[in-house]
Amino acid sequence: MLATVLHGPGDVRFEDVAEPEILKPTDAIIELAATCICGSDLWPYRGAQSVDGPMHMGHEYCGTVVEVGSAVTSVRPGQFVVGSFVLSDNTCPHCRHGFQSSCEQREFMTGAQAPYARVPLADGTLVAIDGEPDEDLIPSLLAASDVLGTGWYAADAARVQPGSTVAVVGDGAVGLMGVLAARQMGAGRIIAMSRHKSRQDLALEYGATDIVTERGDAGVARIRALTGNVGADSVLECVGTDESMHQAINCARPGGSVGFVGVPHGVELNGAFLFFAQKSLLGGPAPVRRFLPHLLDLVLSRKIDPGKVFDLTLPLEDVAEGYRAMDERRAIKTLLRV
Amino acid sequence: MLATVLHGPGDVRFEDVAEPEILKPTDAIIELAATCICGSDLWPYRGAQSVDGPMHMGHEYCGTVVEVGSAVTSVRPGQFVVGSFVLSDNTCPHCRHGFQSSCEQREFMTGAQAPYARVPLADGTLVAIDGEPDEDLIPSLLAASDVLGTGWYAADAARVQPGSTVAVVGDGAVGLMGVLAARQMGAGRIIAMSRHKSRQDLALEYGATDIVTERGDAGVARIRALTGNVGADSVLECVGTDESMHQAINCARPGGSVGFVGVPHGVELNGAFLFFAQKSLLGGPAPVRRFLPHLLDLVLSRKIDPGKVFDLTLPLEDVAEGYRAMDERRAIKTLLRV
Repeated sequence: MLATVLHGPGDVRFEDVAEPEILKPTDAIIELAATCICGSDLWPYRGAQSVDGPMHMGHEYCGTVVEVGSAVTSVRPGQFVVGSFVLSDNTCPHCRHGFQSSCEQREFMTGAQAPYARVPLADGTLVAIDGEPDEDLIPSLLAASDVLGTGWYAADAARVQPGSTVAVVGDGAVGLMGVLAARQMGAGRIIAMSRHKSRQDLALEYGATDIVTERGDAGVARIRALTGNVGADSVLECVGTDESMHQAINCARPGGSVGFVGVPHGVELNGAFLFFAQKSLLGGPAPVRRFLPHLLDLVLSRKIDPGKVFDLTLPLEDVAEGYRAMDERRAIKTLLRV
Repeated sequence: MLATVLHGPGDVRFEDVAEPEILKPTDAIIELAATCICGSDLWPYRGAQSVDGPMHMGHEYCGTVVEVGSAVTSVRPGQFVVGSFVLSDNTCPHCRHGFQSSCEQREFMTGAQAPYARVPLADGTLVAIDGEPDEDLIPSLLAASDVLGTGWYAADAARVQPGSTVAVVGDGAVGLMGVLAARQMGAGRIIAMSRHKSRQDLALEYGATDIVTERGDAGVARIRALTGNVGADSVLECVGTDESMHQAINCARPGGSVGFVGVPHGVELNGAFLFFAQKSLLGGPAPVRRFLPHLLDLVLSRKIDPGKVFDLTLPLEDVAEGYRAMDERRAIKTLLRV
């Protein structure tokens, strides 16, 4: 089959690869309904993360089960499924505590920018829906696999409560999903930090009540001014740079919480700074599996429309253009039709 | 009056100083029933924190109000009071969120290793008890001012729950109070990390169920072995070094929480490490004022006996020996009789 392989920085190819096969009795093979490009795919694409050999790209997926290993019991061929970008058994102690992204058997999904993909730990990872979804819901179901689940986790880790004041650092797809999540959790005020008109508009549509265009210390000062010099109860860090992480911490009030989901690159935190800042921090790869049943309910009942975060749709064969568009910030997030 | 002044590393003097006076209408003057030496007093004593001029030492206190400023309404002369080592108005937004240690008007108490002391922000800082306390309760009431409140905050920040598994890094007075706090909060298992027999004994008396003598990676391995390779739900960091902080983080399970109250010296945390560790962190100077009414109730009803943490009692005039004893680890904590 033809699928997406990254050979080096900037070198994405749509080329012939072996079809996936059941390798372990706990595997499933799915036929993808759609797939997409993640902001984190840009790290190796931009050379910010080393590429040791050809990488089979793609970790966001939904589609139809075509085959399962002999040990798989919770899904069967013909079912439409959505799974987390983190593969987990959903039974180990960490999974039972709701941190499936730190599962004792954790693996990260790969090879999903393709017509077919192998999903290890299928029982613990995949959630089946009843019947076939309406075609127009496919983007939103796909979003649940990572970007929505990650934004949701940012809000959960930042302990968003009904009525609370939330700041979101980062206006990429995850930040926008963070806005949506905070809205669903009942936040009273949601301040999106964004300098891009199209992203500001989507943030407002998803429930942002204020837009702050300043960054760094100026952004922190603006958040303080907007909150009576108190700071936000909850801050969602959705970028991963040293500047954005410090900005996020400084935007929170003492005793407030920061949920950080941007994969840190070059972030260093001084202990005395953290001590006197007196803010709660929790981050990491999102335990999407914890939230997935609820998120699928919200999508299927049309209470949320996370699929709007895809502002570019291309056929899978044009995947290289999809990477370019996101790299050049022409697109927030690219959906690939299989 | 004669009081305690630090002139430089190792140079503690009991010498003549001016009697405290009301400087602001929100001040109170108290006559101390007892005072004590804090582990954090050892940082400047040991030269690990600069001493720019003579420092009037002491921030833990309880005693009788002798005078109040014109604006003070909640305490009056003759009342026995206990206050936090952090002075706060208890009305600002941070105080109302329970983070009085980040009060907009925050000051840190000084000059309490003395017969009399000035307490700024008296209304927000002091809690009066009914009548005179029994003499034998003075050490425990004094402990509530900082060391007990700080250990309690470590457990609170580490989100100790009934039945949870708790590890305590550090067997100083604060660590021992952390053990006591975890027990009061209903922890099912409390693992004290200590290499000193007398401190192990007190930890066990305060409710520790296990003792781990190893440190660093070996200590982490031992905690893992004791918890079925899962890690502790909550970890209390009560030291403040880079090694102890990393040890604390690594002892927690993914999704678990670390409450850090050891004032960090040389602690640096890498963002990617924190991200993939996926543990919740909250630290800072303890908002003792939040806990003080409850802690005083526990002491006055004799449900807890934090005063046992004082294993050396000296007259105030021998304060220099008190510092030496703690510096040389001959004493866990020194109480000074006024």
